[in-house]
Amino acid sequence: MPDAHAIDRLFARRNFLNACVALTGGALIAAAGRARSEPTTAGPPDPALIEDLVAANHILFDQGVVDGYGHVSVRHDKSTDRYLLSRSLAPELVTAADIVEFDLDSNAVDPRGRAFYLERFIHGEVYKARPDVKSVVHHHSPAVIPFGVTKVPLQPVFHMAAFVGEGVPVFEIRDFGGMTNMLVSNPQLGAALARTLGNKPTVLMRGHGAVVVGNSLHQSVARSVYLQVDARLQAQAMALGGEITYLAPEEVKKFEDLGGAGYERAWELWKRKAMAEMR
Amino acid sequence: MPDAHAIDRLFARRNFLNACVALTGGALIAAAGRARSEPTTAGPPDPALIEDLVAANHILFDQGVVDGYGHVSVRHDKSTDRYLLSRSLAPELVTAADIVEFDLDSNAVDPRGRAFYLERFIHGEVYKARPDVKSVVHHHSPAVIPFGVTKVPLQPVFHMAAFVGEGVPVFEIRDFGGMTNMLVSNPQLGAALARTLGNKPTVLMRGHGAVVVGNSLHQSVARSVYLQVDARLQAQAMALGGEITYLAPEEVKKFEDLGGAGYERAWELWKRKAMAEMR
Amino acid sequence: MPDAHAIDRLFARRNFLNACVALTGGALIAAAGRARSEPTTAGPPDPALIEDLVAANHILFDQGVVDGYGHVSVRHDKSTDRYLLSRSLAPELVTAADIVEFDLDSNAVDPRGRAFYLERFIHGEVYKARPDVKSVVHHHSPAVIPFGVTKVPLQPVFHMAAFVGEGVPVFEIRDFGGMTNMLVSNPQLGAALARTLGNKPTVLMRGHGAVVVGNSLHQSVARSVYLQVDARLQAQAMALGGEITYLAPEEVKKFEDLGGAGYERAWELWKRKAMAEMR
Amino acid sequence: MPDAHAIDRLFARRNFLNACVALTGGALIAAAGRARSEPTTAGPPDPALIEDLVAANHILFDQGVVDGYGHVSVRHDKSTDRYLLSRSLAPELVTAADIVEFDLDSNAVDPRGRAFYLERFIHGEVYKARPDVKSVVHHHSPAVIPFGVTKVPLQPVFHMAAFVGEGVPVFEIRDFGGMTNMLVSNPQLGAALARTLGNKPTVLMRGHGAVVVGNSLHQSVARSVYLQVDARLQAQAMALGGEITYLAPEEVKKFEDLGGAGYERAWELWKRKAMAEMR
Repeated sequence: MPDAHAIDRLFARRNFLNACVALTGGALIAAAGRARSEPTTAGPPDPALIEDLVAANHILFDQGVVDGYGHVSVRHDKSTDRYLLSRSLAPELVTAADIVEFDLDSNAVDPRGRAFYLERFIHGEVYKARPDVKSVVHHHSPAVIPFGVTKVPLQPVFHMAAFVGEGVPVFEIRDFGGMTNMLVSNPQLGAALARTLGNKPTVLMRGHGAVVVGNSLHQSVARSVYLQVDARLQAQAMALGGEITYLAPEEVKKFEDLGGAGYERAWELWKRKAMAEMR
Repeated sequence: MPDAHAIDRLFARRNFLNACVALTGGALIAAAGRARSEPTTAGPPDPALIEDLVAANHILFDQGVVDGYGHVSVRHDKSTDRYLLSRSLAPELVTAADIVEFDLDSNAVDPRGRAFYLERFIHGEVYKARPDVKSVVHHHSPAVIPFGVTKVPLQPVFHMAAFVGEGVPVFEIRDFGGMTNMLVSNPQLGAALARTLGNKPTVLMRGHGAVVVGNSLHQSVARSVYLQVDARLQAQAMALGGEITYLAPEEVKKFEDLGGAGYERAWELWKRKAMAEMR
Repeated sequence: MPDAHAIDRLFARRNFLNACVALTGGALIAAAGRARSEPTTAGPPDPALIEDLVAANHILFDQGVVDGYGHVSVRHDKSTDRYLLSRSLAPELVTAADIVEFDLDSNAVDPRGRAFYLERFIHGEVYKARPDVKSVVHHHSPAVIPFGVTKVPLQPVFHMAAFVGEGVPVFEIRDFGGMTNMLVSNPQLGAALARTLGNKPTVLMRGHGAVVVGNSLHQSVARSVYLQVDARLQAQAMALGGEITYLAPEEVKKFEDLGGAGYERAWELWKRKAMAEMR
Repeated sequence: MPDAHAIDRLFARRNFLNACVALTGGALIAAAGRARSEPTTAGPPDPALIEDLVAANHILFDQGVVDGYGHVSVRHDKSTDRYLLSRSLAPELVTAADIVEFDLDSNAVDPRGRAFYLERFIHGEVYKARPDVKSVVHHHSPAVIPFGVTKVPLQPVFHMAAFVGEGVPVFEIRDFGGMTNMLVSNPQLGAALARTLGNKPTVLMRGHGAVVVGNSLHQSVARSVYLQVDARLQAQAMALGGEITYLAPEEVKKFEDLGGAGYERAWELWKRKAMAEMR
């Protein structure tokens, strides 16, 4: 653990800058992006990946994981140093034309005056810290938030959410930024969040939401959905009273070892429904 | 605090009049409106404002904030002494043709025999008391009502509902009108409600619903939606047991300082969906 | 209270007959109906009443009050001794062609071999006992059933459900039929249910559902919807803990005195939506 | 009870094989199916049965009993030794072309390289053990799962779920397979599950879901729906506090004796809605 007081002093200064950035709104942020040397592109991504990323945005809305807020990204298929994310837009409104390429410092390759998500640093910093991660979801699922503001740890109630059994840390932004506007709106807070996530599939953000990662878009989206289902199941089971039998660590490991086959059947359904609505 | 007995005596007489008014129904109320000198118009409002007001009605229904009841108004863009509100109609059925101009005593400029909401005085009296307020929503959100009938104060569970941290007073109509029909159906009760609201973003009404205000239609509608989300989150967090970490006052202030950017992304989504359904 | 053992003996015999009737299915029941002298018709009902009755069936489904089961009737506009009710059919599938005229003993005027609801006696016996009642709804609303199987009385949480404050008795079928198949499938059980209802707007049926009455179709349907909302509100308020302020009897009375104006705004919305779906 | 240690040893070996099978994915499993002598067909099933099976898949999704996972089968109308089940696919996507014939060892008659549900052994083993069963549903209903991970037994709260009163055993897979991947992915676990089911209508699976059987597709589907409704009702009734009056065993029996008429009205509604969506 680094010295807490030193961190506090550091963030006292950073917070002032954050507030300046946050208050300028989207246009100035984009301008600030242009002021730095813009990163070069890794080339056009696979159109199938873009299609899946657009579908992911709509699926997360259809499943009630996101409302007007929240975002989902995927690592570029041509470069591990780039990721793809929509411009600032409600997920349900995202189309292929809204997808933007970012470097891992979360600078847009071709900003063109567009506004970007204030919290895109979540994505960039997680991709830096976790080479195994190919996709990141940030959401405010109402089922999940109560577990971030209490001391009750999320547990794996059923097999479809076995990954919960790997552990669900909680990111308390006060530990890293003191009293903030709650947003992970700079690289430092993004990096702190990535450190709290560690090697886990998901991290809760106190009073805010969650970040879910995966080795593919399909996995990060499906984990987001089943994190939500599991949170509801646990709350319901607790309300019944008495002891609860959660999945044992061995059960978690054996189910996880089944691997990628796990969520493809759901993805096929979700994507077909999302695409039908878009037409 | 004024003398409680004097108020009681005053309201004993007022209640009799209220009952007379309430029992006459819509037609006679409109007629009564005509009997006074009708207020003059402030001129045609901006068509974009009317469009947004119609959208607001539909959004509040889509989001489950209102059912067949509840209403939303906006201050006239040509005069701070006029506001715009639908004639008496379920919000989901409101079109531009149903929007009526009222003065701050809640008299219609051009009643044309139409029936109006019995509780329109909520709007007029809040606009009188709060020059900063540009829009008022009254609703019976089922998620919110339980907090009005218990002693449990609503608290800000997550950043999207940071405004809840400014405080949520509860209007006990018995304190101002004794035993009533529960409706804020005259200017006196409307003024009492506005006083209870004070300088806050929202006030609960015991056994009835809530009033939510904003510096724009977008803000009053979004606050109505996130008040509802927050109430659900708090109830769920309380059900898990143990201590809950709510947003601290400094966090509330810093998030609120982000200002109007806060809810535009949601409004764009909600309006597009509401308009698509109307076509 | 009559002698319990005598009632038990009486019902031991009646139950045997009930079981015979129930086991024969719809066709034989209809045949049995024909075997008695069929009642004469009161003449064609007002087409607007039929249209409203069909709408009521669809509204109750749209609002989640009924699923595949439950039924709604209205007293004939040409005769207080006749009522109108669909043949045995899920409410969401009912059209004008399915409406059947019954006398107050619940014999169909023109059975034509159609199957009827086994529990139509609920309607006939309530119309006999309550001349003020013009419409009867029977449903299994999931929000309401928990209050029928516990000792927790339903209370009026908000003004839209003020009628709950008139009192909500619970019909324990064991008190009248001993151990039954739970269905009110004969006139005797129907009459017992009507006695338990007394002069109230609604009665819960333990382990089964509820019956809601009104002075019009609009009122019985709206009360069914708001009974459901109120039950949810009370459960949520109880879960928050602490004392709850329900509507006081005077508040109930004053709101009820507002009369029929109460629910017309909701009916207009509900009917328009239901009719649009049918087209 | 057989010797627990002997079973453990047996399953230690079996688990290794299971893991091998599970990890190979769909294609190899189908290939393995072909390696055995493929079973012969019982001939083409009644097209009306296929239509009902397709409808059952969609109904279970419409009612929220299944999401992307879960499956429903029906015994072949030409042979008690064959059953019909979709290839591996989300229920909402199933069409007549996806229905496959299996023998009771859960080998496909005509695999054609298609992937099958890993847990199809649930169906085959239940059909072996229960000649009275004509249809089997496996699902992960979120309302039901909490009762499988606590010690709270499901009880019949209302008449529509009277069958719950026959008893709802819980299958603890650890008792038969030790620490597994939670899936009933071989005949041995399927047989153990069928033994736990015994002569009951349903069995919960700890940390997983439930299996529901019926003497027809209509019954297994309707029981799945009302199991879910009943679980919600019981949780709500328990939350109100105090003693709960469940259906007595005699009431359960008498309602059950009403027989097949019970759920046809709901089936007609559900099928018409499901079919309309497919068009």
